[in-house]
Amino acid sequence: MQCMLNIEIRSMEVDDLRDVAIIGIGETQIGELWDKSLRELGIEAGLKALKDAGMRGDEVEKMYIGNMSAGKLINQEHIAPLIADYAGLSEVPSTRIESGGASGGMALAEGYKSVASGMDDFVVVGGAEKMTDVGEQEAKDILSSTADQEWETVFGATFDSLYAMMARYHMDEYGTTKDQLAEVAVKNHENAAKNPNAQYPRETSKDFVKSAPMVSDPLGMFDCAPISDGAAAVALCPVEKAESFQTEPVEIASIGQGGDNLAVHERDDIGTMEATKRASEKAYKREDIGPKDIDFAEVHDNYTITEIMAIEDLGFFDKGEGGPATEKGKTKLNSDISINTSGGLKAKGRPVGATGINQAVEATLQLREEAGDRQVENAEYGLIHNIGGTGASAIVHILRRWS
Amino acid sequence: MQCMLNIEIRSMEVDDLRDVAIIGIGETQIGELWDKSLRELGIEAGLKALKDAGMRGDEVEKMYIGNMSAGKLINQEHIAPLIADYAGLSEVPSTRIESGGASGGMALAEGYKSVASGMDDFVVVGGAEKMTDVGEQEAKDILSSTADQEWETVFGATFDSLYAMMARYHMDEYGTTKDQLAEVAVKNHENAAKNPNAQYPRETSKDFVKSAPMVSDPLGMFDCAPISDGAAAVALCPVEKAESFQTEPVEIASIGQGGDNLAVHERDDIGTMEATKRASEKAYKREDIGPKDIDFAEVHDNYTITEIMAIEDLGFFDKGEGGPATEKGKTKLNSDISINTSGGLKAKGRPVGATGINQAVEATLQLREEAGDRQVENAEYGLIHNIGGTGASAIVHILRRWS
Repeated sequence: MQCMLNIEIRSMEVDDLRDVAIIGIGETQIGELWDKSLRELGIEAGLKALKDAGMRGDEVEKMYIGNMSAGKLINQEHIAPLIADYAGLSEVPSTRIESGGASGGMALAEGYKSVASGMDDFVVVGGAEKMTDVGEQEAKDILSSTADQEWETVFGATFDSLYAMMARYHMDEYGTTKDQLAEVAVKNHENAAKNPNAQYPRETSKDFVKSAPMVSDPLGMFDCAPISDGAAAVALCPVEKAESFQTEPVEIASIGQGGDNLAVHERDDIGTMEATKRASEKAYKREDIGPKDIDFAEVHDNYTITEIMAIEDLGFFDKGEGGPATEKGKTKLNSDISINTSGGLKAKGRPVGATGINQAVEATLQLREEAGDRQVENAEYGLIHNIGGTGASAIVHILRRWS
Repeated sequence: MQCMLNIEIRSMEVDDLRDVAIIGIGETQIGELWDKSLRELGIEAGLKALKDAGMRGDEVEKMYIGNMSAGKLINQEHIAPLIADYAGLSEVPSTRIESGGASGGMALAEGYKSVASGMDDFVVVGGAEKMTDVGEQEAKDILSSTADQEWETVFGATFDSLYAMMARYHMDEYGTTKDQLAEVAVKNHENAAKNPNAQYPRETSKDFVKSAPMVSDPLGMFDCAPISDGAAAVALCPVEKAESFQTEPVEIASIGQGGDNLAVHERDDIGTMEATKRASEKAYKREDIGPKDIDFAEVHDNYTITEIMAIEDLGFFDKGEGGPATEKGKTKLNSDISINTSGGLKAKGRPVGATGINQAVEATLQLREEAGDRQVENAEYGLIHNIGGTGASAIVHILRRWS
């Protein structure tokens, strides 16, 4: 048996990768943070993650930064060395990852790979976005630039309207209702009310959500995630080295990445996000588990319809059952499966490039049993799900409690 | 001995990574390509790389795309799935990497890691930039946004002027002359004249370069690389699977990444690019070779001064000797060390996010002995060097001839 190992090194399978742990987490308050710049937000989150781990800056071997559009939002490209530099780590190699709304999740995937491969031992992965230095309409136009500029945006199809088309289709095809969409917002605000870092830490009601001004029919203002500033970071190392740090490590048990057509009209079925299905199927397969094994999930809910589609496409509910399941309370905290315990993008907030890392922070808190009033009971597996654009890219990580 | 292998898998060193080969290359003409969009350029390069390898699209498991600023240049973020999609590979997971001018090189590093780790077998890494959809001044402003926006650009320090300060310092400190700077341009145009894909495939003279209009003293127009459109791609796989493809593979023998302060004024010595030194020292160490073993190099020459500094910081010449060495012809084709046989960014052209991949294409051609009139004789090792911003990020790959 052991004589085979020499060959296995030369043709490694995924399972020959090193196991990777999250040993530190940090995030800023999310909100309209007029007094903080992108670099300040990035540094705050990164230093919190190092402090949480009890790790020194000079131990960091590599940094990845997820960010959607600092070029347009603050006129600054090349932000990975910017954040490394201002954190006092200018010698540390750093790389920015961009995949629209999935930038943070994709950065985590590259960080995972760096550690799993053995190339680096200690890696910090951050995500940051500073959206309020431009006007709200400009910020929304920039979100739209993650859809297909030549075939969608230029003809007036905004980000909101593309998601509205998906919502309309889902309602027509599966009978999903505006009440069900509203229940996503109500639940996520209920969770956010228990999250001190949330942009909107307060409860709301179905009637209030439904009576909000229309953005793009059928999506009203409270069906949409806000424009936000914020940053988040995680510190990674191989599992074998994780126990020497001060916090209980959480393992990244599996990852999966998926792609799809960039433009919505190119897809066969706009009521399904194939990239999400592809990403999660890979992630489940690698860990040899299924959606039933997942105790809680942070899913991409930039719109209420996105959460409904995500909980179906991730396999938690059958297609068309996402709305009814939400309405019946099956996705509330400590129900069938706790979805977006943090409040999600919808109520915790949406600093775009940070969202995937915010999800990792929440999942880590849950698996360390440090989530306070929003703690999921007896959770072993948490799934995090980040998508880019209108679903052309998706990344899924499955995190596991240390045992 | 073999009984130790089980342990080695759990604590892998870099040398336990799989060896990675470049099995296919492709690039577009570089120039002001008014009739081609970013997606068309990306697809052209990618399909050429697949065709060169004799690889089918459905074999591709992962794509990385290096790009500096499509958000600002063509109002399109999220370009990795854009290019995958329009190449007919919408299901393929794809990720964009951005590190200013080093975006292409950094994308190659992530692609290398994907294959070396065993996570993927067949990976395509592309780089693309479409710069001429905006005016020349706007394109230059976007280049400046890879420097420090808050502490440099906003005060009027343009990209050109920051490099001009480095040039002036280098001249004062080491006696580098304008004649020596001009010789970089003359040499690179001489090489470009033998490269059918070059934007400026024609020779020039020292007097012509020196009499060009001043851009930022001491750098004149012909000390600066142009604004360009273009794309390039390479196909990667593990060395053990490389021989089944139709071309002679080239091995990526080593990589190294370095960082430095984002703002020039934060650095101790602006006549040296520490990020380049850090990156190359790591790369040499991993392969256990030194600069003397390198037969040719494609170095980042966005300005003539940058090549002078690079050939010093990469260890080919002592500090301060880059100018005299160039003047004496030591960096010409088939002299002491052949530098920028492609014509470099200076004369082959500068489609920013593609440049690191253009360098890989040139090095592969050289090591396959397919470089025609600009062929380096008996080359075993070629080094490629890509930097971001004014040198805050650098990536070095060492490529080795198949033997």
